[in-house]
Amino acid sequence: MNDQTAPAKDPKPSDSYVQSFARGLEVIRSFSASAPQQTLSEVAAQTGLTRAGARRILLTLQTLGYVETDGRQFRLTPRILDLGFAYLSSLPIWNLAEPVMEDLVEEVRESSSAAVLDGLDIVYVLRVPTHKIMRTNLGVGSRLPACWTSMGRVLLAALPDEELQQRLEAHTLQRWTEHTATDVPTLLARIRQARQQGWCLVNQELEEGLISIAAPLTNRTGQTVAALNISGQANRTSAEVMQETMLPALLKAARTISRMMGAPR
Amino acid sequence: MNDQTAPAKDPKPSDSYVQSFARGLEVIRSFSASAPQQTLSEVAAQTGLTRAGARRILLTLQTLGYVETDGRQFRLTPRILDLGFAYLSSLPIWNLAEPVMEDLVEEVRESSSAAVLDGLDIVYVLRVPTHKIMRTNLGVGSRLPACWTSMGRVLLAALPDEELQQRLEAHTLQRWTEHTATDVPTLLARIRQARQQGWCLVNQELEEGLISIAAPLTNRTGQTVAALNISGQANRTSAEVMQETMLPALLKAARTISRMMGAPR
Repeated sequence: MNDQTAPAKDPKPSDSYVQSFARGLEVIRSFSASAPQQTLSEVAAQTGLTRAGARRILLTLQTLGYVETDGRQFRLTPRILDLGFAYLSSLPIWNLAEPVMEDLVEEVRESSSAAVLDGLDIVYVLRVPTHKIMRTNLGVGSRLPACWTSMGRVLLAALPDEELQQRLEAHTLQRWTEHTATDVPTLLARIRQARQQGWCLVNQELEEGLISIAAPLTNRTGQTVAALNISGQANRTSAEVMQETMLPALLKAARTISRMMGAPR
Repeated sequence: MNDQTAPAKDPKPSDSYVQSFARGLEVIRSFSASAPQQTLSEVAAQTGLTRAGARRILLTLQTLGYVETDGRQFRLTPRILDLGFAYLSSLPIWNLAEPVMEDLVEEVRESSSAAVLDGLDIVYVLRVPTHKIMRTNLGVGSRLPACWTSMGRVLLAALPDEELQQRLEAHTLQRWTEHTATDVPTLLARIRQARQQGWCLVNQELEEGLISIAAPLTNRTGQTVAALNISGQANRTSAEVMQETMLPALLKAARTISRMMGAPR
């Protein structure tokens, strides 16, 4: 993710064009678990659009088959998934990593996921759950703050130090549990440690009971393009056990996937 | 899916607005496994846009954070997944079905998926793979033709007969294997059988060796909103075994999920 660039400031397409496109995407994003279907007025209220503006966009989305309506309630159609699918299938790891992750889950009997960095969030792109009662409910597309997750720290570790520091300083640091690192120097130290050792363990910094260990996935130019983790419950799997028994399997799986992407041995 | 409506013909937002929004989404969809990153010219060629048009849209998407570039190559960012996530999280089954499906997979030792209908395609929205060597590579967002899949047939079975017939007659019927039903009367008969018995088994009609069995998932108004399946390899699991040993577990899981969505007992 070294080359992840901030949105371009210049040159700009016409503001009105950008704005109308942005609003269309905002309308799509206004649907959620708590608002699975919405009336015209609800969409307008959610997005800050006028009723006329919301109506124009909803009818556009309906014309294109991304929204359907019974006349009063609007909802998204599965066609929306084609957009996310375009992204997922364009990720080199997406077709390669899953069988390796399944073997890893079989071996360590804990869930494994892969994520990429987006600003200061990690976004899940693959997930292989274990068959256990306690599971974390993190599907593809879920976001978590990068600073307090093991995958986030190995992804942040790939940024140049200066950029890393800038991002952290612009970030509102939050205390999630009694273990959360909440100041920039501590976070920086932990991220640099991840960079140095090539993996990272995070013990209940984001959620009590949640423990995970991650390693970077690299491509043929040695760039970190994603992270791979194993996650578990702290009351069942201690940090020591995770590091001693699961880390070798994790590092092996990460190397296998990286080599599939052309990383040098 | 009874109430799935065709895109509105009337009233229309201005054609130029619809068209420019449609083109933006087309640019997103032009990225794929075979084109994970593209130059401006490649995007223009893929979408039929002029270079100037493609440039305007790429810069818009970049301004909004959906596309990133190294100056020459453009690629999608994980932000795209927020759009699909808006759809998935707005599906009532999405949060409810997965634990039930994991129990089902544990019990029958075969993969289970859930899908919805989009025209004459099914679109996968959930998938719980089994840990076996032979697996089908069908992630969330994948599409298959509804006519020759067990989930597709139980979803089509929920359409009124007249609409079903219209959709089938407008469809190009393809022979995928020697078992494929390729004429409308045979397809209609099999879909009506699925409707009558409340489940459907499809034996290698889409791909040699692929066998699956599906049941509908219904909401509180009794509407079929999705389908649940178990899929396996025909050389390992015969149609008889699937029907005798797995169908009861499938129907039980489908009832459990449907009741979670408020379906009457």
